[in-house]
Amino acid sequence: MLALLKNIDQFKIILASQSPRRLELLKMIGLDFEVKPSNIIEKNHNSLQPLDYALMNAKEKARVVSEKYPNSVVISADTIVVLGNQILEKPENDNHAFEILKQLNGKTHEVITAFGVILKSKEISKFDSERTKVKFRKLPHDKIKAYVKTSEPLDKAGGYGAQGLGSLLIEKVDGCFYNVVGFPLGKFYLMLEEILNEL
Amino acid sequence: MLALLKNIDQFKIILASQSPRRLELLKMIGLDFEVKPSNIIEKNHNSLQPLDYALMNAKEKARVVSEKYPNSVVISADTIVVLGNQILEKPENDNHAFEILKQLNGKTHEVITAFGVILKSKEISKFDSERTKVKFRKLPHDKIKAYVKTSEPLDKAGGYGAQGLGSLLIEKVDGCFYNVVGFPLGKFYLMLEEILNEL
Repeated sequence: MLALLKNIDQFKIILASQSPRRLELLKMIGLDFEVKPSNIIEKNHNSLQPLDYALMNAKEKARVVSEKYPNSVVISADTIVVLGNQILEKPENDNHAFEILKQLNGKTHEVITAFGVILKSKEISKFDSERTKVKFRKLPHDKIKAYVKTSEPLDKAGGYGAQGLGSLLIEKVDGCFYNVVGFPLGKFYLMLEEILNEL
Repeated sequence: MLALLKNIDQFKIILASQSPRRLELLKMIGLDFEVKPSNIIEKNHNSLQPLDYALMNAKEKARVVSEKYPNSVVISADTIVVLGNQILEKPENDNHAFEILKQLNGKTHEVITAFGVILKSKEISKFDSERTKVKFRKLPHDKIKAYVKTSEPLDKAGGYGAQGLGSLLIEKVDGCFYNVVGFPLGKFYLMLEEILNEL
């Protein structure tokens, strides 16, 4: 399917993210790319709506990397986990992970990924977002503690990984599953196709 | 989390399926098992409801393997793709895959997995099922043909793989995502826990 993308071989593609999940997902659909993390520090978000916060971060990541690689298609994304109107961060330690997971336990939260592409030399900058609802099973605290002990929560927004043991926490998803893993492959593919067609 | 399963180390666990996706999923949740395919021939299903057909196959797979390994926890599953009331099989060749995928294009189908466990020496036999709705994007035929050319459809019920390029066909899922890949991890874990607790 990727072979059908017009002009795909004319540009170097860069993923401005060091998330191993994103890297794996983009490889899964056969995309050929290099990884150049932006290393930006994600800013305080108290004053922003969750989606605006994610969009701001995704845009900033792509912008920073595009400065260095103006002739490359730079892809970026930012995934957040939202319960009510509260953004749940990556846990700082095991206790924090346990607190976050207790909040999510038995409830439905939303995973929002802002994502997009900058091709600076052609003045292309396109961003969009995807939302997926995730319902967690109601688990006893000893199960949540056992999950925290696996260390899987530590580098993940919301403190769980949908591709891993965290799959056992999820009762159902409603929407794009890969968005929950960290990158909405389907919607991204359509965006990339549109951009390449316009070139 | 699996470490919390009572009695888990007392039994050898056998997966009566040669599906590489099922194997991968069960490894993902840390289960320690051996693979012993049943090699049964799946029977004609014209007279059965889709769910009954999947249950019959899952039970038969576990039964056959349990005869040889009566002291092991034998896990089996059968996944089918259903559009309306019609079961869509694994495609026989590229043309067949194209026909199946044209039928699914732009529509919502259901993926049903019947799954269960037999531990013959303890007279345990438990089966259940999971259903997930999958909505396909509406794609032009050249895209579907390009997907068929990748050979991904050939060994898969419904002619697509949700973990792979097939992810680009899916607009959204409603339910357990891993059920679409071929094994409903969450529901299976709860079943296994219940069985082990009763021993």
